[in-house]
Amino acid sequence: MADDTMRAFVLKRVGEVGVVEKPIPEPGPNDAVVRTTAAMVCTTDVHTMKGVISVAPGVTLGHEAVGVVHAMGSAVEGLSDGERVAVAGVTPCFQCENCQRGYTSQCSGRMMGGAVFTNQADGNMAEYFLVRNARANLAPISETLSDHQALYATDMLSTGFLAAEHAELELGDTVAIFAQGAVGLSATIGCRLRGAGLIIAVESIPWRQELARRFGADVIVDHTHDDPVRRILELTDGQGVDAAIEALGTPGTWEATFRVTKPGGRISNVGYHGDVNEPLKIPLEPFGYGMSDKQVYGGLNRGGRERLRRILRLMEHGNVDPTPMTTHEFGFDEIERAFRMMETKEDGIIKPLIRFE
Amino acid sequence: MADDTMRAFVLKRVGEVGVVEKPIPEPGPNDAVVRTTAAMVCTTDVHTMKGVISVAPGVTLGHEAVGVVHAMGSAVEGLSDGERVAVAGVTPCFQCENCQRGYTSQCSGRMMGGAVFTNQADGNMAEYFLVRNARANLAPISETLSDHQALYATDMLSTGFLAAEHAELELGDTVAIFAQGAVGLSATIGCRLRGAGLIIAVESIPWRQELARRFGADVIVDHTHDDPVRRILELTDGQGVDAAIEALGTPGTWEATFRVTKPGGRISNVGYHGDVNEPLKIPLEPFGYGMSDKQVYGGLNRGGRERLRRILRLMEHGNVDPTPMTTHEFGFDEIERAFRMMETKEDGIIKPLIRFE
Amino acid sequence: MADDTMRAFVLKRVGEVGVVEKPIPEPGPNDAVVRTTAAMVCTTDVHTMKGVISVAPGVTLGHEAVGVVHAMGSAVEGLSDGERVAVAGVTPCFQCENCQRGYTSQCSGRMMGGAVFTNQADGNMAEYFLVRNARANLAPISETLSDHQALYATDMLSTGFLAAEHAELELGDTVAIFAQGAVGLSATIGCRLRGAGLIIAVESIPWRQELARRFGADVIVDHTHDDPVRRILELTDGQGVDAAIEALGTPGTWEATFRVTKPGGRISNVGYHGDVNEPLKIPLEPFGYGMSDKQVYGGLNRGGRERLRRILRLMEHGNVDPTPMTTHEFGFDEIERAFRMMETKEDGIIKPLIRFE
Amino acid sequence: MADDTMRAFVLKRVGEVGVVEKPIPEPGPNDAVVRTTAAMVCTTDVHTMKGVISVAPGVTLGHEAVGVVHAMGSAVEGLSDGERVAVAGVTPCFQCENCQRGYTSQCSGRMMGGAVFTNQADGNMAEYFLVRNARANLAPISETLSDHQALYATDMLSTGFLAAEHAELELGDTVAIFAQGAVGLSATIGCRLRGAGLIIAVESIPWRQELARRFGADVIVDHTHDDPVRRILELTDGQGVDAAIEALGTPGTWEATFRVTKPGGRISNVGYHGDVNEPLKIPLEPFGYGMSDKQVYGGLNRGGRERLRRILRLMEHGNVDPTPMTTHEFGFDEIERAFRMMETKEDGIIKPLIRFE
Repeated sequence: MADDTMRAFVLKRVGEVGVVEKPIPEPGPNDAVVRTTAAMVCTTDVHTMKGVISVAPGVTLGHEAVGVVHAMGSAVEGLSDGERVAVAGVTPCFQCENCQRGYTSQCSGRMMGGAVFTNQADGNMAEYFLVRNARANLAPISETLSDHQALYATDMLSTGFLAAEHAELELGDTVAIFAQGAVGLSATIGCRLRGAGLIIAVESIPWRQELARRFGADVIVDHTHDDPVRRILELTDGQGVDAAIEALGTPGTWEATFRVTKPGGRISNVGYHGDVNEPLKIPLEPFGYGMSDKQVYGGLNRGGRERLRRILRLMEHGNVDPTPMTTHEFGFDEIERAFRMMETKEDGIIKPLIRFE
Repeated sequence: MADDTMRAFVLKRVGEVGVVEKPIPEPGPNDAVVRTTAAMVCTTDVHTMKGVISVAPGVTLGHEAVGVVHAMGSAVEGLSDGERVAVAGVTPCFQCENCQRGYTSQCSGRMMGGAVFTNQADGNMAEYFLVRNARANLAPISETLSDHQALYATDMLSTGFLAAEHAELELGDTVAIFAQGAVGLSATIGCRLRGAGLIIAVESIPWRQELARRFGADVIVDHTHDDPVRRILELTDGQGVDAAIEALGTPGTWEATFRVTKPGGRISNVGYHGDVNEPLKIPLEPFGYGMSDKQVYGGLNRGGRERLRRILRLMEHGNVDPTPMTTHEFGFDEIERAFRMMETKEDGIIKPLIRFE
Repeated sequence: MADDTMRAFVLKRVGEVGVVEKPIPEPGPNDAVVRTTAAMVCTTDVHTMKGVISVAPGVTLGHEAVGVVHAMGSAVEGLSDGERVAVAGVTPCFQCENCQRGYTSQCSGRMMGGAVFTNQADGNMAEYFLVRNARANLAPISETLSDHQALYATDMLSTGFLAAEHAELELGDTVAIFAQGAVGLSATIGCRLRGAGLIIAVESIPWRQELARRFGADVIVDHTHDDPVRRILELTDGQGVDAAIEALGTPGTWEATFRVTKPGGRISNVGYHGDVNEPLKIPLEPFGYGMSDKQVYGGLNRGGRERLRRILRLMEHGNVDPTPMTTHEFGFDEIERAFRMMETKEDGIIKPLIRFE
Repeated sequence: MADDTMRAFVLKRVGEVGVVEKPIPEPGPNDAVVRTTAAMVCTTDVHTMKGVISVAPGVTLGHEAVGVVHAMGSAVEGLSDGERVAVAGVTPCFQCENCQRGYTSQCSGRMMGGAVFTNQADGNMAEYFLVRNARANLAPISETLSDHQALYATDMLSTGFLAAEHAELELGDTVAIFAQGAVGLSATIGCRLRGAGLIIAVESIPWRQELARRFGADVIVDHTHDDPVRRILELTDGQGVDAAIEALGTPGTWEATFRVTKPGGRISNVGYHGDVNEPLKIPLEPFGYGMSDKQVYGGLNRGGRERLRRILRLMEHGNVDPTPMTTHEFGFDEIERAFRMMETKEDGIIKPLIRFE
């Protein structure tokens, strides 16, 4: 392989993925190029592989990666060559009007426009990757943190925390979280961090239930044994919870969030509902025919150096450790196997770690 | 008629209304009895008359009234006999947990539990009416205000302002308001008061269009001539509005609010969706498959003396005058005719004023 | 002692306290009478004893107590005789305009008007005590909680949590807390519950330092060895913290909060500054000459059943245990000794528990 | 004068200002160069001239200007050569951590770091000026707006609106604004836009009083005839206002804001307190000894294209017209005279407009 080329894991065509050789990217004035040291596969990557999210053939997959600064554009400040950095899965410009309004996920006036990796440009499941607006998006990683820990800041914790933030919990509030995959588990961590008084996690897989408990869930509801709506109402004396989080992306869990919340409750969605080709339905009576004071919010990872730094700080001082979510570990050569396992969810996989070194 | 009886306008059975004689109510320790001087009919009363909202036969209708304090319970403070007072259409206790959380419309743990008049007890379309939790719910009316003006504080302005508040406008934001009935017009007033930079009102009836302009709409879209979604996108350079208000209560306008808002936009519902017996549908693509940062809120009149006082203050200093919305005026003897006109909306009726004296 | 009398611990005159006999109170329509089972002494009680806070001679002291419902007024709903209840130190009406605005501590238009116990009526360091607006202010205590635990909800946790709430922490934010008395320690618990990324506690007394660590402080700064301003800036790479909490009530700690916060930082005061008879001073340069985007907030315990319930819930599920703050325990006969120790702070006293049974 | 030079109005040394020749600036990759068409002088410029704000000799003065795009850096998007643009007086990067936290005025971790013009680089009282981070900071001006109108968006309205935003007004709230210079008048406009129910403006100069009335003040208090604290309390039935705005920068008006606000009130500072070399004093009793629930906020112009666009929009649709504040007009050759008049405030000057063409 020539000195200026690298290996990249790409979408060849819908359903087909693999490693190809690509040129190492060159930075424009506001860009940085990062040499990847570790990455993780996200369920969104699998959606992309399967064509649920449509991207250009040949694009490099992946949006959860950490590494070291390899090259920087002339206008990039505040970073040094060789510095260890984390990059969020969403990399907004922070300068357009949507970003200035605070909706950085919706960068450049485009719905989900901050989701650059894979969707608008190459992702970062490659030996090197380009980061636009590098000054706003690269966060230094403290020596006390491993790559493994830092990776969780790039997407899972940031997204799960967003779900918890949109739940707008007052201290001691009650919350139900539908599904305990990596995002749901991160939402559980987030709700514990925001001072929930009762966290009810809905999940049937034993290892996920165990992690949910470890991360702060007070009660687990197994929807294969219990009707979760009925059970959550029981657990809250018929009142319902102050907030419900949808971290799965199915019509059933979406509708359940309305049924389990009390008047004035918040519904916080981080599930992706692109799988099913029909409108989301809000059941009328639990929504008070439009007058229940229920609030619905749906968002995604906000990105940015400042948010990354805050999430990393929670790990630096030992207040959060998400690494038990990592069920499997692979070398770069084994990425395709990691993708396939994420598709089938076999062997209880939650998050696979990919080591580049 | 005996000294201790009064005339009340009641629901005899679904579809049948009329005046009956009832005893003048006696106050409990925290109650007040108000002698009615003026009232207005609300579209909700018509829903009740038609059975869309189910209430007990014989109940007095109405929830928009002003009058003078006739009698007070032993524990009521801060009011004097004979004082002119306004009472909101929603009369929460302000003491239960939902009220303490700030969701006073959802009083006593019941969805819309603050809607006491007509729904849980007699309404106030009678010569006298009882107000529970009087200390929290009666607001003195300044001498400079007419009964006519004060009536608008009891429901229309409070509800329309709520719609504007949930639109969470930043100064100069853009907003579209679907329908310019009395609540929609009040939302227009509210959005102007919150500093909207562009108010687009969707309405086809000429007098309502004229009022919308007078109350602050910058552009009127007539949905009988134009597709409002297309037109609103055009008017905002394809970006969509920062917020959309649903003040009608139909599936079509509800769905349109999602289509006309930009990512990060707010959908504020004050339409009652109990007419149609099916779930509310959120179109997927304009909702970003759950990830658009759009926020949905549905509520109703919050009630309470403090809110009434603030709304009355806006009229006291001449900053707001909603009375042009009053298209018709009746004596108490003509109430049924007012109800029938509100049902058919004949003669361009918006709000009918009922004088008791 | 007659059947209708009780023992009460009162302020006889400034500096002199002791037990007297008083009639057991009778409830008005909205009141309840509680038979006390346990109480705690607060530093505010000591201020009152010393005359810093001026009250009527003969008034019963105390505002942190739990017990069982002994009698209820005719209009009180939602409670049963004999029910175990907690009552906050601040008992607002929740119906006046300040309460409706959400400023329940400032009830009835009076600064700190919600502080009824001792200041406007008898406190609750007596065998029985009267609670006004009982429906809004009494919270049932779950069987799983001890009186000892529930007592912390009445003032210390509620006040410390308020400090944390006014710090408006984003997940991972940095915060400095000045002094780790019972309120400061409760603020430390509160900041951990809100997801602080770095909590710096300023304290010199070893047992308080130890508790601070146990409750979540990441770093302790001993102001008798280090200049806390310099040290906090060092610990934050010269940036300052996102928020600083003043939990002592001295001019020096107040001014320090401005010096240690970054631009856009929050200063949250729960210290009582009535001891020193001079204005509070804001140092100009750290306040950006008025333009630093720093936000200053000073409040007190908000009270109310709903807040109590949320705080109790945090203890019910084992997420919070403040009882290690209790350094001493006394019977009712020994209350005066507890007061004297709170005055001198001898023997490392933080909170003394008074058992009535 | 050579083709590549321009005239600039500079600070020669403290107290001495004048026109010099300078090279026309060249843009870096993220910069733009604007050819100035109109500008205004700000009181801050006078502070700078007098040395109260310390800057490097030779620096170009001014930070309120509009013009047309003359040149752009290679990485600047979303603008065209020759486009008419407004630039805020504060030009943040929007990418550093303080900007990402939303405190754009405090850009780059520096207190008031967004105040680039004059303080960190040349101002814009020159025939051409350089704008850093142009993409985030240049806002197109609609054809329907004059340069004169657009100039008000760059600082006066943005700063006055910030004052109104920090007053956190609910609809119908009461507010007192201390001083009706250009910023105070803009705050009056802002409070009217946010739906204040009663605006009390404190001012003694007749033309300013007249403008205050025109822009929405309901009552004028002349502090040369009345004690404003006493008068404001009278006007609010002894309750005080919900919010007070300090738009002057003197110890007396600062302290008055605490005395006129009710418990739970907001104090919003936009006055610059660098003139007097002593701490700001908060009077104890009106601050409830730290427990009044009063909130204090001090900030400055936030800058940015998105905010500019919203302010411009309010003028485009005729909802705001600040131009009556312009009392004088000068050519570029007469700038020094405008500065001297702003220093002495002679001839009732409020804002002088400088035309470059």
